[in-house]
Amino acid sequence: MSEKRKIAVVITARPSYSRVKTAIQAIKEHPKLELQLIIAASALLDRYGSAVNYIENDGFEIVAKVFNVLEGENLTAAAKTTGIGILELSTVFDNLKPDIVVTVADRFETMATAIAASYMNIPLAHIQGGEVTGNIDEKVRHAITKLADYHFVASDSALERVIKLGEETEFVFNTGCPSIDLAKEVEKASLDFNPYEKYGGVGAQPNLESGYLVVMQHPVTNEYQNSRKHIEETLHAIEELKIPTLWFWPNVDAGADGTSTGIRAFREKNKLEHVHFFKNMKGDDFLKLLNNSKCLIGNSSVGIRECAYLGVPVVNIGSRQNKRDRGFNVIDVNYNKEDIKEAIQKHLDTGKAQISEIYGGGNAGENIANLLVTLPLKFHKTITY
Amino acid sequence: MSEKRKIAVVITARPSYSRVKTAIQAIKEHPKLELQLIIAASALLDRYGSAVNYIENDGFEIVAKVFNVLEGENLTAAAKTTGIGILELSTVFDNLKPDIVVTVADRFETMATAIAASYMNIPLAHIQGGEVTGNIDEKVRHAITKLADYHFVASDSALERVIKLGEETEFVFNTGCPSIDLAKEVEKASLDFNPYEKYGGVGAQPNLESGYLVVMQHPVTNEYQNSRKHIEETLHAIEELKIPTLWFWPNVDAGADGTSTGIRAFREKNKLEHVHFFKNMKGDDFLKLLNNSKCLIGNSSVGIRECAYLGVPVVNIGSRQNKRDRGFNVIDVNYNKEDIKEAIQKHLDTGKAQISEIYGGGNAGENIANLLVTLPLKFHKTITY
Amino acid sequence: MSEKRKIAVVITARPSYSRVKTAIQAIKEHPKLELQLIIAASALLDRYGSAVNYIENDGFEIVAKVFNVLEGENLTAAAKTTGIGILELSTVFDNLKPDIVVTVADRFETMATAIAASYMNIPLAHIQGGEVTGNIDEKVRHAITKLADYHFVASDSALERVIKLGEETEFVFNTGCPSIDLAKEVEKASLDFNPYEKYGGVGAQPNLESGYLVVMQHPVTNEYQNSRKHIEETLHAIEELKIPTLWFWPNVDAGADGTSTGIRAFREKNKLEHVHFFKNMKGDDFLKLLNNSKCLIGNSSVGIRECAYLGVPVVNIGSRQNKRDRGFNVIDVNYNKEDIKEAIQKHLDTGKAQISEIYGGGNAGENIANLLVTLPLKFHKTITY
Amino acid sequence: MSEKRKIAVVITARPSYSRVKTAIQAIKEHPKLELQLIIAASALLDRYGSAVNYIENDGFEIVAKVFNVLEGENLTAAAKTTGIGILELSTVFDNLKPDIVVTVADRFETMATAIAASYMNIPLAHIQGGEVTGNIDEKVRHAITKLADYHFVASDSALERVIKLGEETEFVFNTGCPSIDLAKEVEKASLDFNPYEKYGGVGAQPNLESGYLVVMQHPVTNEYQNSRKHIEETLHAIEELKIPTLWFWPNVDAGADGTSTGIRAFREKNKLEHVHFFKNMKGDDFLKLLNNSKCLIGNSSVGIRECAYLGVPVVNIGSRQNKRDRGFNVIDVNYNKEDIKEAIQKHLDTGKAQISEIYGGGNAGENIANLLVTLPLKFHKTITY
Repeated sequence: MSEKRKIAVVITARPSYSRVKTAIQAIKEHPKLELQLIIAASALLDRYGSAVNYIENDGFEIVAKVFNVLEGENLTAAAKTTGIGILELSTVFDNLKPDIVVTVADRFETMATAIAASYMNIPLAHIQGGEVTGNIDEKVRHAITKLADYHFVASDSALERVIKLGEETEFVFNTGCPSIDLAKEVEKASLDFNPYEKYGGVGAQPNLESGYLVVMQHPVTNEYQNSRKHIEETLHAIEELKIPTLWFWPNVDAGADGTSTGIRAFREKNKLEHVHFFKNMKGDDFLKLLNNSKCLIGNSSVGIRECAYLGVPVVNIGSRQNKRDRGFNVIDVNYNKEDIKEAIQKHLDTGKAQISEIYGGGNAGENIANLLVTLPLKFHKTITY
Repeated sequence: MSEKRKIAVVITARPSYSRVKTAIQAIKEHPKLELQLIIAASALLDRYGSAVNYIENDGFEIVAKVFNVLEGENLTAAAKTTGIGILELSTVFDNLKPDIVVTVADRFETMATAIAASYMNIPLAHIQGGEVTGNIDEKVRHAITKLADYHFVASDSALERVIKLGEETEFVFNTGCPSIDLAKEVEKASLDFNPYEKYGGVGAQPNLESGYLVVMQHPVTNEYQNSRKHIEETLHAIEELKIPTLWFWPNVDAGADGTSTGIRAFREKNKLEHVHFFKNMKGDDFLKLLNNSKCLIGNSSVGIRECAYLGVPVVNIGSRQNKRDRGFNVIDVNYNKEDIKEAIQKHLDTGKAQISEIYGGGNAGENIANLLVTLPLKFHKTITY
Repeated sequence: MSEKRKIAVVITARPSYSRVKTAIQAIKEHPKLELQLIIAASALLDRYGSAVNYIENDGFEIVAKVFNVLEGENLTAAAKTTGIGILELSTVFDNLKPDIVVTVADRFETMATAIAASYMNIPLAHIQGGEVTGNIDEKVRHAITKLADYHFVASDSALERVIKLGEETEFVFNTGCPSIDLAKEVEKASLDFNPYEKYGGVGAQPNLESGYLVVMQHPVTNEYQNSRKHIEETLHAIEELKIPTLWFWPNVDAGADGTSTGIRAFREKNKLEHVHFFKNMKGDDFLKLLNNSKCLIGNSSVGIRECAYLGVPVVNIGSRQNKRDRGFNVIDVNYNKEDIKEAIQKHLDTGKAQISEIYGGGNAGENIANLLVTLPLKFHKTITY
Repeated sequence: MSEKRKIAVVITARPSYSRVKTAIQAIKEHPKLELQLIIAASALLDRYGSAVNYIENDGFEIVAKVFNVLEGENLTAAAKTTGIGILELSTVFDNLKPDIVVTVADRFETMATAIAASYMNIPLAHIQGGEVTGNIDEKVRHAITKLADYHFVASDSALERVIKLGEETEFVFNTGCPSIDLAKEVEKASLDFNPYEKYGGVGAQPNLESGYLVVMQHPVTNEYQNSRKHIEETLHAIEELKIPTLWFWPNVDAGADGTSTGIRAFREKNKLEHVHFFKNMKGDDFLKLLNNSKCLIGNSSVGIRECAYLGVPVVNIGSRQNKRDRGFNVIDVNYNKEDIKEAIQKHLDTGKAQISEIYGGGNAGENIANLLVTLPLKFHKTITY
C-alpha cells in the first residue's frame, strides 16, 4: 500500500521547536510521511515569545492549536495545565488519527502528549530521552520513556541509559539531536543582521562590534521560590561587567514570574546601559548570534548542546543542566555574582572552545524521519527484565 | 516536633481497596500519622460496585470524593478521565497539603494521582510497582515508578526490577502486598455467611455445599475490541460445565461495556441455571468465598496474589496477568472454551495447591505505615546510572 | 459572494435529535448552507440509546464527536459535564469556524453549547426557547434565550414570552417545532414493522394486535432522589393493568440511575409478562408506534408535542412537562399508581383526541433553514427595555 | 434551630471586590451568617493586581482559591476559563455545602459560579443584575438573572428590568450598590497618603498638588481586536494634555494583552513625563484618589457609580458603560483623541458635579446581609408570565 504514515508532532514551547525543527522538516519532505503539526501550551503565547509565529514563518502548516496553559504562580497550575492538555490533545488525536505521535524532551506539559497517545494506543516516539539533569524534568523525562514505544536519543550515554531502563534495544536509536543539525547550518556564518532592527526588544542598544555576551536563564522548577534571588545574581554580575550584552526573556514555567519580575524590577531601578532585552529570535538568527558571541551565560540547554558543537564558551549557572553530558565549552558555577563574573572572564581570556560531536553530527532530522517510515507500528511493550 | 505526618491515600477502584486496606488501617491507627483518604473514579460509582460504601462501612473517614470518570466506550475516555483526575486532585492536594501522597498499583487513572503529586513537589509513595504484565498497565506502572519517590513493592522480583529502573536502593522496600494481610486473616475461615442473602445479585441460586467455582474476568485495555468475544468463551465454558458458579461483574475500563454487554446478552438468551451474578462483595467475605471454592476462573490479580497465599486453584485466562510471578496454584490458558474447561477439570481433580509467600507473609500494612513515619520527606531524585 | 454559510448544530441527547432532524435535513439540502453536525454527551453513549447510530444511519455526516458526560449519581456531575462540554466545544468551534451555532431546547448540557458560542462571538440560534416547565430546565432554557441571538420557537405563547424577556422582535420567529414535521410524515401510517424483530430489547413480547400502551418516563432533575420511588408507581400501575406495553429506557440525567435501577430491580422480582423494554428506536418508527398506540404514559415531551398533532392520548405524570401548552390529548396525574391507572382507563374509553397545531403545522425544518440563510450575522445585542 | 446559614461568595476579579466588600463584611459580622469566601480567576493573579492580597489584608479568611484562568490571546480562552471554573467550583461547593451562593455582577467567568450553584440546586443570589450595557457582559448578566433565585440590584431601573425579565417581585430587591457604601466612607477624605511611596508603580512621579487626572481603561470584549488602537487614542490625548496623570493597568479580559501591549509599547517610545502607572491600589485609597482628582478618564464602571455619588467628573470612553444609568457627572465620548481632550477640558472648567444617589445611599452591604438571613431557601422557580 502506498498510503502515507501520519506523524503527529506536538510542540509545546519555544525551545522545543529548535529541538525538532529539522525532524519536522524531514518528515514534511518525506514522500512516505504526512506531517500533522500541533502547537500547544506556551508555544502559542505572546508573553513566552510566540514560537508559533516562527513556526508558521518557516513554512509549516499547523493542523491544531491547543491552548492549555492555566495561569497561576504555583506548581498546581503546572499540574492543571497538564490535565487540560490531556483533555485537549485526546480530542485532537481522535480527530487526526495519527499513526505515530512524537513528543519532545521533558517539559512538564509534554507528559500530556505522552499520556494521551499511549492511553489511546497510538505508537509514541520520544525525542531526547535518557538524559540526566536531576530536577522535576528528570522525573518527567524517564516517565515518558516508560510510556514511549520508540526512543530517538541524542547521545551515547542517553542510549545506554534508555536501554538500562528496560526498553528493547531494537527500538532505541542514537539519532543525534536535531538541534545540532541547525548548528551545523550556521557554523561558518557571521552575524549578518542587525538584531535591534530585526527583533525590536527593549533597553539599550550597545555596539556589538568588539564582542558581546548572551544571557538566557530560566527559572528552575524545584527552586521556584528562589527564582528572583537567582536571577538577581546574574543581573548584578552582568551589570558590573559593563560588556555589551543581549538578554533573552525566560520561557514559561512555575516560577516564571519570579524570574521575569526580577528582571523587570531590576530594569526599573538600574540603568543597564549596555544590555538589550529580546523576547525571542528566529532559531537560525539566534544560533548565528551565539556563534559570534564571546560567551553564553545562564542555564539554557543550548549552551550544553548547540554550543558544544559550535565551540561557543558557556557559563552554566545552577542545577538546571546538572549531569547532562558536557563538550569542551562549559564552566559550571553557582548562583553567585562573583563566580559568574570570574567564569565569564576566564572564557573571555581563552576564546572559542574545541568542537564536540557528543550530541550529534548534524543529520538527526533525517535519521528520525527515516526511522518513522520503517519502524513497525506498535503500542504494546514489556520491560526487558 | 510532635506534629503528625499527613498521608493522603487515593483509591480509584474496587480492587485497589483490598490492595491497601491494611495499610490505611495501619496509617489510621499510627500515633504519628494522620490519614487523608480520597476516593475517586470508579470506586465512587454504583455500576462498578460502589467500593466507597465498603470503605465507609469499614469505618474509614473520607476527606474528599473526586468524580472524574468520563463516559465513553473508547480509550479516549480513559485519557480524558486521567486529565480530569489531575485537575481535580491538584485542587484536593492544594487544600489538604499532605506530607506524602500514596498511589496504588497501575490502573490508568492512578497516573492522575502520580502527576498531581509529583508536579506539586509532594513526596509520592507507590505501592506495587516493579511487576510485569505486558499490557498498558505496565506502561503506567513503570512510568509511575519514575515519578515516585518511595517504592513499596510486593515481591523480591519487583524489588529487583524497581532498582534496575534506576531508583535508589534506600527508597525501595519489599513490604509484601497488603492484600496478603487480608488473606492471612481468613486462611482458616469457613464460608460462614449466605452470599445470596447478604449480597443479593441476580440469577440462579445454586446450592454451594458440594463445591463451587468463582469467576472474575475484566476487559483488557489493549484488546478491548475483543472484550465481548473473550468473555463469551468463558461464558460457554461455565455453561457447559454445569457446576455451581458465582460470577462477579467486571470493574470499569475502556471496553468494560464489551464485557458487561456480553454477559448481559448471554443471560438474556441462555438459562445459566447454575450461575449467580454479584456486583460486589466485602473484601473479607470475598476471600472466604475464594478460600472455600474449588477454583477461581478469569484474569483477576486476586488469583495470582491472594490465591497464591491461600493455595486456591486458579485458571488464569489470557494476557492480563502475563508475567506476574506465580505461586503453585495457577494454570494459564487462552481465550478458548475448551482450554478453560480442561484446566478447571484438572484443578478439580487435584484440589488445593501448596501455599506460597511470594507476595508477602501478612504484615505489609504495618510495614508501610512504619516506613511512612520514618522516611525522609523528599521529592527530588535522580536516576542512579 | 456565493460562499455557503456554515451552520454548526450540536445534538446532545436522543430526544433532541427528533427536535431538529428536519431542520438539519433542510440545512444539509440548502444550496446556501453547509451543515456542521456535532454529536455530544449522552447522544454518543450506548446506555442512553446511542442516538449517534440513528443519526449516521439517516445519512448525516458527523464532523465532531464530543464525549463530555462525567459519571456520578449526583448533580455535581451535571455541572461538571457542562464544564467539560465548554472546554471541548470551544476547541471544536475554533476548528470549524461556524458562521452560526444552533443549540436545541433546554437540557442542562446545552448550556455548554450556548456559552462556548456566545463567548466566542459566534452568532447563536436557539430552537425551542420561551416554553414554561417550572424545573431546572426552565432556568437553563431562559438563560440560553438571554445568550442567544436568534430564537426559533415552537408556539405563539413561546414567541410572546421570548419577546417579553427583552429580545428584539425581529429576531424571534415562530417556526413551529421540527418534531411536528416528523409527526406529519407518519400521521396516516400503520404499524408496518415488527418492533421485537427490528429493535430487539428485553422482556416479554406481548401481542400488539388488539392495542398497546407505550411508556417513557425520565428522572426529573429537581427530584432526583425520588426517581426510584416515582418510577415504581408507574411500574406497579402498568403491571396491574395487564395491557400489552412497550417501555422505553430513560435518557441520561442526574438520577438516571435511580430510574434505571428501579426498573431493573422491579424486573428481577416481577414477571411483567405483558411488558417489553426497548433502549431506543428510530424516530419515525417510534412515531408510528405512538400513532397506533392506545395511550402514551410518562413524562416525555413527545406526549405534549407530537402527540398533540397526532391526537394520541397521553397520561402525563408529575412535574416535568408542567405548564407546557397542551393540545386536546393530555390528562395530567401525580406520581400515584391509582391516578395513573384511572387516567389510562379514561383514555382507553374515549380513544383518539382531536388534532392540534399548537406546536406547528409540519414545515418547521424548512422555516429554520430559510432563516439561517437570510438572517444578518450578529452576536451583539442589548435588552429591549 | 440556631445554626448559621453558610453564605459562599465568589470573587473573580479586582473590581468585583469593591462591588461586594461591605456585603461580605456585613455577612462576616452577622451572628446568623457564616461567610465562605472563595477567590478565583484573575483575582488571584499577580499580573491583574492580586486582589487576593487586598482581601486578606482586609482581614477576610479565604476558604478556597480557584485558579481557572486559561492563557491565550483570544475569546476561546474566555470560554475555557469558564468551563474550568465550573469544574473547580462544583468541587468547592460540594465540599463547603453552602446554603446560598452569591455571585457578583457580569464578568464572563461569573457564569461559572452561577452554573455550578444552580445545577447543584444551591440557592443563588446575584448582585447587580438588571443593568444595561450593550456588550457581551449584558448577555452574561441577564443569563445569570435567569439562573439566580434572589436578585440584589443597585438602582430602580435595574429593579424594574429584572422584574420584566420574569422574576418574581418578592425576590428582587434594590439594595443599592455596596460600592457606594465605600464611597460614602471617603466622601470627605483628603488625599492623606503619598501614592508613589505606598504603591510603587512605574513611570514619572508628577507633582499632584495643583490637581491631577486618573485613567482606567479596560479592553472591551466585543472589540478586542481594536484594543490597542483604542488605548492609543487615550494615550495620545493624555500625552498632549501634559496634566499630572495617574494611570491604572487594565484587569484581565480577552484582549487584555492588546491594551497592555499598547501601553507598554507607547511607554517605550514616548516620554510621558507627567504620567505614573499603578498596577493596583487598596479600594479606599483609590476612592480617596478619585475623590480628590480633577477627572476620571476611561471606561471603568467606577466612573458611573462611585463617582456619581462622589460628584467626581468623568470622561467615559466608548461602549463599555453604554446605557448604564448616569448621575450628573459623566461626559460620554468615542475612541477619539480630540473628543477625549475636549471633554476633559470641559470638566476642568466646571469642576465637581452634583451628587446623585442613583446607585444607592451607602447601606447596601447591610441590606444584603439582612436579606440573606431571612430569605426562604429555594432553588426552584418559574417565569412569571
